[in-house]
Amino acid sequence: MNLEEQRLMVDLIRNRRWAALATQSADGPEASWVAYIPEVDFGGFLLHLSTLASHTRNLLAYPRASLAISAPEREEEDPQTLARVTVQGEVAIIPKGAADYAAAAKRYQQRLPASTPRFDFADFLLLRLNPLRVRFVGGFARAYTLDGTGLKAAAQRTS
Amino acid sequence: MNLEEQRLMVDLIRNRRWAALATQSADGPEASWVAYIPEVDFGGFLLHLSTLASHTRNLLAYPRASLAISAPEREEEDPQTLARVTVQGEVAIIPKGAADYAAAAKRYQQRLPASTPRFDFADFLLLRLNPLRVRFVGGFARAYTLDGTGLKAAAQRTS
Repeated sequence: MNLEEQRLMVDLIRNRRWAALATQSADGPEASWVAYIPEVDFGGFLLHLSTLASHTRNLLAYPRASLAISAPEREEEDPQTLARVTVQGEVAIIPKGAADYAAAAKRYQQRLPASTPRFDFADFLLLRLNPLRVRFVGGFARAYTLDGTGLKAAAQRTS
Repeated sequence: MNLEEQRLMVDLIRNRRWAALATQSADGPEASWVAYIPEVDFGGFLLHLSTLASHTRNLLAYPRASLAISAPEREEEDPQTLARVTVQGEVAIIPKGAADYAAAAKRYQQRLPASTPRFDFADFLLLRLNPLRVRFVGGFARAYTLDGTGLKAAAQRTS
């Protein structure tokens, strides 16, 4: 994976905010949509989810999850050539009393200003997906696998 | 779920071609990207996948899967207001010798012309996701659950 490809992956993660989340439900894997924000060093992906949503209940029962981010679909192109990335990992709650809560909540709200009122809702939780395995596809048959350390190194190298 | 909302859901499914797929891997749920085509009556969703891809290997081991389709992300909007749909179900291979293979392959290639050469690749399989449970979110806190019969009824009612 050369520097250009690392930059493509890092920019994709930074420029999008809407991704699919795979969680484990009683009926098998469940895909849903979430807004996400990567932390500065890509050490974690912040999610702000309602406990009323089934993906959140799935995560509370089984914390393994996977986030799928893609470049925007274009009608005239073969979608198989789109750059996309999958971040597999484990999700943990950031409790309101935790030392890193305020900074994480601020970062999330800066990038997603419409979320601010929801931070006062009793049913919302701030969560962090800790990346364990990252799969980047730069186009048809151009794929790379990284671990969390590799992802952080790519973020640092390209910033 | 009124007719306008059914139309929104049906149009979303018809107009997009690129969705996230949740499958079950040994390390937990895995999210990836796939091109999909709904069948005319929404009785199934066609996928054309390589057995070299991990989502395909996951499906061959455990056929439960979930497809997540979303309206395009817009930078200025709260992504939480985007219309999106999750189709949970079970995936089955459509063998090359099956009576419905030719029609399904033709439908897929008409909507995704760039896929045609891949139908000659030995590692590609044509698959059908049979919807068991559909969850449509028309925006923030406007959500509906349907089964496969309800999805077909919505497709028929709005066409």
